[in-house]
Amino acid sequence: MRYGFGVDIGGTTVKLAFFDETGMLLDKWEIPTVTADGGRQILPDVAASVASYIKDHGVDKNGVIGIGVGVPGPVNDAGVVNRCINLGWGVFNIAQELSQLTGFAVKAGNDANVAALGEYWKGGGAGYTSMVMVTLGTGVGGGIVLDGKVLHGAHGSGGEIGHMVLRRGETEACGCGKRGCVEQYCSATGVVRLARRHLEAAQMDSCLRHRQNITAKDVFDAGKAGDGLALEILEDYYDHLGEFLADLCCVVDPEVVVLGGGVCKAGQMLLDGMTPYFHRHVFHAASGAKFAIARLGNDAGTYGTFKLVLDAFG
Amino acid sequence: MRYGFGVDIGGTTVKLAFFDETGMLLDKWEIPTVTADGGRQILPDVAASVASYIKDHGVDKNGVIGIGVGVPGPVNDAGVVNRCINLGWGVFNIAQELSQLTGFAVKAGNDANVAALGEYWKGGGAGYTSMVMVTLGTGVGGGIVLDGKVLHGAHGSGGEIGHMVLRRGETEACGCGKRGCVEQYCSATGVVRLARRHLEAAQMDSCLRHRQNITAKDVFDAGKAGDGLALEILEDYYDHLGEFLADLCCVVDPEVVVLGGGVCKAGQMLLDGMTPYFHRHVFHAASGAKFAIARLGNDAGTYGTFKLVLDAFG
Repeated sequence: MRYGFGVDIGGTTVKLAFFDETGMLLDKWEIPTVTADGGRQILPDVAASVASYIKDHGVDKNGVIGIGVGVPGPVNDAGVVNRCINLGWGVFNIAQELSQLTGFAVKAGNDANVAALGEYWKGGGAGYTSMVMVTLGTGVGGGIVLDGKVLHGAHGSGGEIGHMVLRRGETEACGCGKRGCVEQYCSATGVVRLARRHLEAAQMDSCLRHRQNITAKDVFDAGKAGDGLALEILEDYYDHLGEFLADLCCVVDPEVVVLGGGVCKAGQMLLDGMTPYFHRHVFHAASGAKFAIARLGNDAGTYGTFKLVLDAFG
Repeated sequence: MRYGFGVDIGGTTVKLAFFDETGMLLDKWEIPTVTADGGRQILPDVAASVASYIKDHGVDKNGVIGIGVGVPGPVNDAGVVNRCINLGWGVFNIAQELSQLTGFAVKAGNDANVAALGEYWKGGGAGYTSMVMVTLGTGVGGGIVLDGKVLHGAHGSGGEIGHMVLRRGETEACGCGKRGCVEQYCSATGVVRLARRHLEAAQMDSCLRHRQNITAKDVFDAGKAGDGLALEILEDYYDHLGEFLADLCCVVDPEVVVLGGGVCKAGQMLLDGMTPYFHRHVFHAASGAKFAIARLGNDAGTYGTFKLVLDAFG
């Protein structure tokens, strides 16, 4: 049996996992991401953590296929990172650098794309040949997997679906500087924005009026409890989400759309709410996609990075 | 040297072409599409036309690689057509049927997708590895080619980009029954719709007011001549087109976007007008696509169908 590592570098922590070649996750742990000094310490920290895992667990180095690494920014097929603002990184070849630090073969990918690959391989997309992964978290991320290959895009931005324009008349700015992006409506933050707008516009009483710092979960919980205004907010949210997913299906026409991120904790309620709006907005011939909730949670990234390694060197 | 045929079945005519294996178009001709009686005569007509070409030109049957066929509707990888309303066709395997009628290997594809493959192979997309083709004609069609393979979609609707929702508040219905589709704004018909709206809303005089049955070409010509209202209409058109192309690039991030169809006769004027709006609407990291005008005109489909044959049997 051979083995490998999956490494998912985030702005706060680095998630590491140890897999056997069948894709069984054998062990996982985290280390803090040290972003000081332009993020110079991150890769040496990863290398040290891998080395001490190998030493502590008596792993045979000759049986290690390689290390997969996911980064929160664009990275091309050769492993060249093109700026990760969260980490302070500029342009450099992460695959080469981490390989020199560890002595192992390294394959790199964008974090959203590798999470998609993980879900495709062992999660909500398992058993399908084409998948769009949509992550409804603080922002909206995505990844497209076709016949087992991630659509990285010619400039590392394949699946940057959170910044499609959904509402051209929007007056508030998105974090990216544009107006009307998908992320402004369909993210967890988007749920809260919609809630704020409905609370301001409507007179109706609601349990949400008595809370400070409403979260997406609060809105879903209030809706579940039958709060009228919360239900109106959710209908508006489902409408935006359904339109967005319809647009995606018109482009890609995947077998399955896997929904992940914090908003998806709403599970079946989310799918049931969104589906009628999806069908209202989608072109009939592109309406055949199935919908599923992501299954790997925070492990999707390490699964996906290890799959990169298997595909490249396995 | 070996040879093959490309056949592009449209609602009015069937375009046929004879290629050598390098992709040189040696001959082309058309026959009428007989849609009477559920389109039952179409394939026998195609088979007869191919047979008489072979006879008349003394083509060695053993040197024929096969026949590629494009159809105006969804078709899967196995050659199963899923209804072509224009032709009166239901569900059947066109590859099998045309193969039985001709004795040659047959590969089938959707007309927009094979036109995209043709432009990718020998037209505006030649030399690039990933391409989105956008056809701005009576409607808006599309095709996505990644590493030489057409993204057919799981249900034959990959690249059905004309029915993405562009304007959620639209009151008029699209031909597909939905409201606010890309096709309602970005097609040649869309140019005319925008013109009608601007002519109704504005007081400004314009040479367009003195015409009946305005065409997209009239609007571009008037704009070129400096007509103020025509220029306003075109700015509105470029804005819609730029937003649409920005959304596409956020999903696919291709190396090149090739624009075809009647509207593209405006050429560089169209590209120059659209580009600032594209950059206003696109996510910065997905803004790297180049734009090009299609080069094969009505031959794109036959080039693409023959390429299908080369890839499958060549």
